[in-house]
Amino acid sequence: MLTKEMIAEWFQALQDEICKALEKEDGEGKFIEDNWQRAEGGGGRTRVIKNGKVIEKGGVNFSAVHGEVPSFLKNDHTTTNLDNHTFYATGVSIVIHPNNPMVPIIHMNVRYFEMSNGVWWFGGGIDLTPHYVNKQDAKYFHTQLKNTCDKHDVDYYPAYKKWADDYFFISHRNETRGIGGIFFDRLNKKSKQEIFAFVQEVGKTFAPTYVELMNKNKEKKYTEENKKWQYLRRGRYVEFNLVYDKGTKFGLETNGRIESILMSLPQTASWEYNHLPIQNSEEHNTLNCLKKGIDWV
Amino acid sequence: MLTKEMIAEWFQALQDEICKALEKEDGEGKFIEDNWQRAEGGGGRTRVIKNGKVIEKGGVNFSAVHGEVPSFLKNDHTTTNLDNHTFYATGVSIVIHPNNPMVPIIHMNVRYFEMSNGVWWFGGGIDLTPHYVNKQDAKYFHTQLKNTCDKHDVDYYPAYKKWADDYFFISHRNETRGIGGIFFDRLNKKSKQEIFAFVQEVGKTFAPTYVELMNKNKEKKYTEENKKWQYLRRGRYVEFNLVYDKGTKFGLETNGRIESILMSLPQTASWEYNHLPIQNSEEHNTLNCLKKGIDWV
Repeated sequence: MLTKEMIAEWFQALQDEICKALEKEDGEGKFIEDNWQRAEGGGGRTRVIKNGKVIEKGGVNFSAVHGEVPSFLKNDHTTTNLDNHTFYATGVSIVIHPNNPMVPIIHMNVRYFEMSNGVWWFGGGIDLTPHYVNKQDAKYFHTQLKNTCDKHDVDYYPAYKKWADDYFFISHRNETRGIGGIFFDRLNKKSKQEIFAFVQEVGKTFAPTYVELMNKNKEKKYTEENKKWQYLRRGRYVEFNLVYDKGTKFGLETNGRIESILMSLPQTASWEYNHLPIQNSEEHNTLNCLKKGIDWV
Repeated sequence: MLTKEMIAEWFQALQDEICKALEKEDGEGKFIEDNWQRAEGGGGRTRVIKNGKVIEKGGVNFSAVHGEVPSFLKNDHTTTNLDNHTFYATGVSIVIHPNNPMVPIIHMNVRYFEMSNGVWWFGGGIDLTPHYVNKQDAKYFHTQLKNTCDKHDVDYYPAYKKWADDYFFISHRNETRGIGGIFFDRLNKKSKQEIFAFVQEVGKTFAPTYVELMNKNKEKKYTEENKKWQYLRRGRYVEFNLVYDKGTKFGLETNGRIESILMSLPQTASWEYNHLPIQNSEEHNTLNCLKKGIDWV
């Protein structure tokens, strides 16, 4: 039987593996680790890297927390009375902000949730936020995700690609955060073993995919203008994470470990009043790619 | 009779006066103006300044908008059925981010709201966010606000100072945004004339108070370390505005003019994982001042 402890253990091993792969490709940066306990139950292992050769700031976090079912779930109309029930949640969360504006920002999350009433589900996803959209990279990235999905169910990629487009959307800017990827939540319609196998495959896809994108782009030349644009795009990333991201909101509202939650924010971001890129510039072309429904594969 | 048009006109004149005073003290920066229309009714006059001698980025915005009562007010339990009613809202909003970390960030808002069912109120406030808390400046700032309040009602300052402490609070950091100031909303217990006279006095207090703080601090020397700290403090400012500020939330949810709403964000902000200032450093002393309930006068 697949227990929550087995899932958490696998997630911890995934964290180890990903940190190792990122350190290797970075060549200089090393993760530092903070172990923390949650007063209400459980804790985590936060790993952050900064001022690496390729990675400016990033985090690869594992956590496994438990306790009383939070009130936002008690109010959830899909569940029954949960007053005397407990929950258990475990997962790995990653955000990487690179130095070079030609290397994209990446985010991954895989998570498992269960309650003492027997309800359980998996969630997660991977999405890419290039400062400059490179169509070849975008195709590569989405093809990797599609291959991962197709091994388990050919309906997954189209459904979870659309879910990512809808989820990673900055509605006040009417633009997507980046070129999307896959996003899924509350998966429980197949057996726990089957869904976990898919989530494992997603987790395993992260390191080789991002390492390839780091490797391909990390030596590219860039200008001061490219750097300024990177800071503006990071500003949008901050807007998404603080205004819309459910994980961040959940963390802030449930008194989570704030430094682990906000590791997703970049070292430097900027805002300019009414910035409009020049017609047909690379920046302008990128904005034109920040739309829902683009078929990158 | 005091009409909404008279109030809006006064707010526009206040915008003019404040822009003139800030340009004069800055010495180099000039406001640029954008006039905008709101599809659903009304519009505004956004004025932004950037790369001045003292002010790095700032906005002094006037708006007067009207239309159908927004749904968040329809759901407000203090009001009756508003289905066929309209609203009118006008005000001036200011945020100034200076270059020199020794000059504080300032925010002001004064606003008037009415509905076609006869309900009306005023709201507003001024608050200060020093990157480095200077107790003499803090005392000066709060004394200015207290004097302004006391001319109208000796109960105002203690009540609105507390309201500011509670409002400008970053609960996930357990720290106030800055040293507070005054904040008030839905004032309508005295005559419209009386409350407007108070709001006018608040508006008039802004320019001389901030000009004094600019003037006193703008030539102060600072280091690279001071600048880094300024960027971190601005990161907290971004967190407050995107996560908690009601004006920002209201703007984002009601499809407001995004560039006018987000003019409050700084040109550059930064985040560092688990930054802890050295014991008894100026940075550490500042953090110790970011608490509710400090009597600055």
